[in-house]
Amino acid sequence: MMGVKVGIIMGSQSDWSTMREAATILDELGIAYEKKIVSAHRTPDRLWTYGKSAVERGLHVIIAGAGGAAHLPGMMASKTRVPVIGVPVQTRALSGVDSLYSIVQMPKGFPVATMAIGAAGAANAGLMAAGILAINDADLAARLDAWRDALSASIPDEPADE
Amino acid sequence: MMGVKVGIIMGSQSDWSTMREAATILDELGIAYEKKIVSAHRTPDRLWTYGKSAVERGLHVIIAGAGGAAHLPGMMASKTRVPVIGVPVQTRALSGVDSLYSIVQMPKGFPVATMAIGAAGAANAGLMAAGILAINDADLAARLDAWRDALSASIPDEPADE
Amino acid sequence: MMGVKVGIIMGSQSDWSTMREAATILDELGIAYEKKIVSAHRTPDRLWTYGKSAVERGLHVIIAGAGGAAHLPGMMASKTRVPVIGVPVQTRALSGVDSLYSIVQMPKGFPVATMAIGAAGAANAGLMAAGILAINDADLAARLDAWRDALSASIPDEPADE
Amino acid sequence: MMGVKVGIIMGSQSDWSTMREAATILDELGIAYEKKIVSAHRTPDRLWTYGKSAVERGLHVIIAGAGGAAHLPGMMASKTRVPVIGVPVQTRALSGVDSLYSIVQMPKGFPVATMAIGAAGAANAGLMAAGILAINDADLAARLDAWRDALSASIPDEPADE
Amino acid sequence: MMGVKVGIIMGSQSDWSTMREAATILDELGIAYEKKIVSAHRTPDRLWTYGKSAVERGLHVIIAGAGGAAHLPGMMASKTRVPVIGVPVQTRALSGVDSLYSIVQMPKGFPVATMAIGAAGAANAGLMAAGILAINDADLAARLDAWRDALSASIPDEPADE
Amino acid sequence: MMGVKVGIIMGSQSDWSTMREAATILDELGIAYEKKIVSAHRTPDRLWTYGKSAVERGLHVIIAGAGGAAHLPGMMASKTRVPVIGVPVQTRALSGVDSLYSIVQMPKGFPVATMAIGAAGAANAGLMAAGILAINDADLAARLDAWRDALSASIPDEPADE
Amino acid sequence: MMGVKVGIIMGSQSDWSTMREAATILDELGIAYEKKIVSAHRTPDRLWTYGKSAVERGLHVIIAGAGGAAHLPGMMASKTRVPVIGVPVQTRALSGVDSLYSIVQMPKGFPVATMAIGAAGAANAGLMAAGILAINDADLAARLDAWRDALSASIPDEPADE
Amino acid sequence: MMGVKVGIIMGSQSDWSTMREAATILDELGIAYEKKIVSAHRTPDRLWTYGKSAVERGLHVIIAGAGGAAHLPGMMASKTRVPVIGVPVQTRALSGVDSLYSIVQMPKGFPVATMAIGAAGAANAGLMAAGILAINDADLAARLDAWRDALSASIPDEPADE
Repeated sequence: MMGVKVGIIMGSQSDWSTMREAATILDELGIAYEKKIVSAHRTPDRLWTYGKSAVERGLHVIIAGAGGAAHLPGMMASKTRVPVIGVPVQTRALSGVDSLYSIVQMPKGFPVATMAIGAAGAANAGLMAAGILAINDADLAARLDAWRDALSASIPDEPADE
Repeated sequence: MMGVKVGIIMGSQSDWSTMREAATILDELGIAYEKKIVSAHRTPDRLWTYGKSAVERGLHVIIAGAGGAAHLPGMMASKTRVPVIGVPVQTRALSGVDSLYSIVQMPKGFPVATMAIGAAGAANAGLMAAGILAINDADLAARLDAWRDALSASIPDEPADE
Repeated sequence: MMGVKVGIIMGSQSDWSTMREAATILDELGIAYEKKIVSAHRTPDRLWTYGKSAVERGLHVIIAGAGGAAHLPGMMASKTRVPVIGVPVQTRALSGVDSLYSIVQMPKGFPVATMAIGAAGAANAGLMAAGILAINDADLAARLDAWRDALSASIPDEPADE
Repeated sequence: MMGVKVGIIMGSQSDWSTMREAATILDELGIAYEKKIVSAHRTPDRLWTYGKSAVERGLHVIIAGAGGAAHLPGMMASKTRVPVIGVPVQTRALSGVDSLYSIVQMPKGFPVATMAIGAAGAANAGLMAAGILAINDADLAARLDAWRDALSASIPDEPADE
Repeated sequence: MMGVKVGIIMGSQSDWSTMREAATILDELGIAYEKKIVSAHRTPDRLWTYGKSAVERGLHVIIAGAGGAAHLPGMMASKTRVPVIGVPVQTRALSGVDSLYSIVQMPKGFPVATMAIGAAGAANAGLMAAGILAINDADLAARLDAWRDALSASIPDEPADE
Repeated sequence: MMGVKVGIIMGSQSDWSTMREAATILDELGIAYEKKIVSAHRTPDRLWTYGKSAVERGLHVIIAGAGGAAHLPGMMASKTRVPVIGVPVQTRALSGVDSLYSIVQMPKGFPVATMAIGAAGAANAGLMAAGILAINDADLAARLDAWRDALSASIPDEPADE
Repeated sequence: MMGVKVGIIMGSQSDWSTMREAATILDELGIAYEKKIVSAHRTPDRLWTYGKSAVERGLHVIIAGAGGAAHLPGMMASKTRVPVIGVPVQTRALSGVDSLYSIVQMPKGFPVATMAIGAAGAANAGLMAAGILAINDADLAARLDAWRDALSASIPDEPADE
Repeated sequence: MMGVKVGIIMGSQSDWSTMREAATILDELGIAYEKKIVSAHRTPDRLWTYGKSAVERGLHVIIAGAGGAAHLPGMMASKTRVPVIGVPVQTRALSGVDSLYSIVQMPKGFPVATMAIGAAGAANAGLMAAGILAINDADLAARLDAWRDALSASIPDEPADE
């Protein structure tokens, strides 16, 4: 998958229903990506390999979603200097506050660009990846501006009864 | 201030003791930056102007710190496609949980790359900015790698009594 | 819409099911209002224009509802001295605690009169608007007193099995 | 104290260090006020009398501060249609979250215009009172506008090392 | 209703589905009670009258349930020295944490004997009332002991698949 | 210590600085009491013995204070039908929210009359004990009424600068 | 039930749907266990007996699940030096945060090995028990390693649309 | 360091003031241990090596302390079947709730035996390690029993004024 600059990784298959929102945004903006299940706890060696090879494989941004004791984004940030965007997946008992704290409260040295809990956060991870890539890609910048303009233009003036 | 690619903005003078950590990291990594007070509520027009001119002024990353009902990072993300990194400043009554929620829980369309509450988060904002710029700057990438290696190397094998 | 003194604004169409409760109260009390979608992030310029023209357009009270990183009420309070009543809309992951903190924890200078989370808060926003307008409107004051008396009178003496 | 339109009430002497911020703002804006200790639990009859006579005594706004199980603002809102602004006083164990929930989560029928926890909230209560009175007082409106302009003008362009 | 020593009061009809659990326990233990809707905000004068007459009417215990900004138990405790047992009713947005804080965090002088959130708390309010009355009622003490013994005896040794 | 009707128990010596407030109130109201350290975890057999003998020893009320995983009040409620008043002691990391939840969230069958976190809660435990004893002690009822009247009378009309 | 080294205990029948996950894991790993209902509050003497006889009965690990004011794990830890693994059962109002705090916040002297809230925590309790027993059981160690390897091997490389 | 069965690891030097409590307990009980700084993020390869060699090096229990986004205990549990005891270190902004959630909310497959936040939790980690080792070490079991007995015996009957 040559030329792929964005990796979407997640802790388990069950995170895909959330993380798919990131993929959808990247599709809309014409950004190629790969999507992988990389479990911090169940496949730690996969995490290691992914992190260590990220630069040489040409990844520019990694989007990582996980729930509960969500260690994937932070551990990935430990293994590579490629910017990591973290998505806290909503959980059953704690509604994703556990995911949020596990992702955002990183110690000095290893930032994770944390998004909102759940689907909105996943979509925004795609947009944040686009914004980062757009710094050096004028075409993408134009597409991102257009996406944003379209979103604004879609807002009606008054609420409608349903 | 030609060539400045990183803007550090904050809601008030009192945020500087936190946000200075971001500036220190940028200094260590040899990244030029500007620092401004841009209050979402007290100087909203300054926010508008800053956001609208960010692309043409050549900013590649904006680091925004604020506390309480911390609207600065999110409003800045609304005004420009330049990636915005948000730092929740610790607050007196709610310890920065209010800042965190106000920054991270952005709706679909306007991501803010949220860092940890307080000083660690501010330092990490500097590192995240460096990671983003390093995508297209091999020299900076090398300096960032070195910074990370030095951090790892500084960790002693055993804890010392103090 | 001459003579309209109350503006109901909200961040998105999805907030209307909550904010309609404010409109219902205003209808019951015979208070004219306008209702608009003004998204802090998606239509920031609309917010600017609304805020800057509020006084000259004759608005006396603005009711603003939003959820998540709910920046609309606070940003509106920044743009106009017209009193802003904020309604935290309930959210999926954090139940509206994020909305509440984003609205109520305003810094010195820009108060938002924050109501309860959700539908009860929206209804109360309508009543608070009425209470403010009633200060200088004896007829409305009488209608408000009657509304309150009717509410009290509607309470049965004993709970009924259902 | 003829002509006093604003009453500042609080649950105990210990709340005064917080509520004084409201008084200071009213002083700055040239708004007369009275200040009273009215404890919901220790002096409930005082609360009753205060609420029942508020309209006839000519009060236009009541600012009520309390901490913990903070019943004063809500009970006052039950006794009078005069708008009540609530200030959650910071508490020792729960930092004022208890005060905030006890004040803001009012049921339909009895709104309390809730401010931020602590001193900023008290100052904002004064400003909200001013905003309400300014609806029908052009001179006060001008003073309030000037106060707001001065606040904005006081913000330096860059943060200063201290 | 001569001889009634326990009053069950609640803020609204909707609290009855919870508070009925208290009544059921009292029925099981053969304790007479009255049940009333006494809304702190909607019928404050009813609260006043109820509290002021509680001693002379022969009430020995008052069970008070309320949700949200739950002021009923605390205000009742302010108006009478009859012991007040508070039941935090579960709420939609905050799950009853608002009710709990509003009831339990009473200032020195006015205790409310707070129970668990929801139905278990209401049932326990009935048992606490029974325990208080049993201090001076040997027959009731025996019935309460028997109720407790029966509860213990009902616990099977092993869990059963369902 | 014949005739002692109130037992104050606590999980450790360190709880005494909080629980002393209960003792002070009982002293002021002329109510005899015993005070004991009964640790649910460190001296479970002491808890057992205390609970099993409470009725026959003539205790009418037990005040139990504990912090953290505060099992003392609930376990005591399991061992005796004597009413148990629980005081959540403030803790270092969680400010007593852990104590509060461990004490108040009792299952159906075993109520604990939970007070506010910390010193105010301990004082109120003394007052709640007094209120319970006063049901059948007219002299104590008069002293309690006087204590409450004195508290109300001590409230000044206006706050004083300090 | 000779040779049983693991006891699964729970506060009530309703906890079984959660605690069954622990039993399933033990079944998968070929570890014999007993399962009992031991309610801290309803059957405290059963708890006492169970704890006091645990060592002599040959138990090596006790898994204890409970919800709300979840005193069972901590009280069991008080009665025996056999390691106790605690499972916080999810609750209706507080989602198991009450269970978690009541179990994990044990004072110095009586550790409870606390697992995640709910079903995942119960399964992990089984695995923790296995890990402890495997220290001195090479066959079990091999089975546990195999279980872990199988879990890792079951993770697909990419998420699948469903 | 032959024969060492317990490893105490922590994320940074600053955790030692907390984790020293675990070491003290092990010293008191005559249990040899090693203590290491193993940072999940700053020295991930050290974590890998430590985990992979734990079994062959003869470790029976690993005590792991960390704060904030505390990934060390969970990542270690991913790398070895040796039981991992986790200690949430108290943090500045969130008091260790972030540490607690990051440690305890592990997904099915990788349990961490979580202790209380802070120093009490660290001491209990030492005791839990002792309890696990005592299963197959009668001498240690006797010492642990004696330690527990001494703790119980140290509790005075009554609280003392200080």
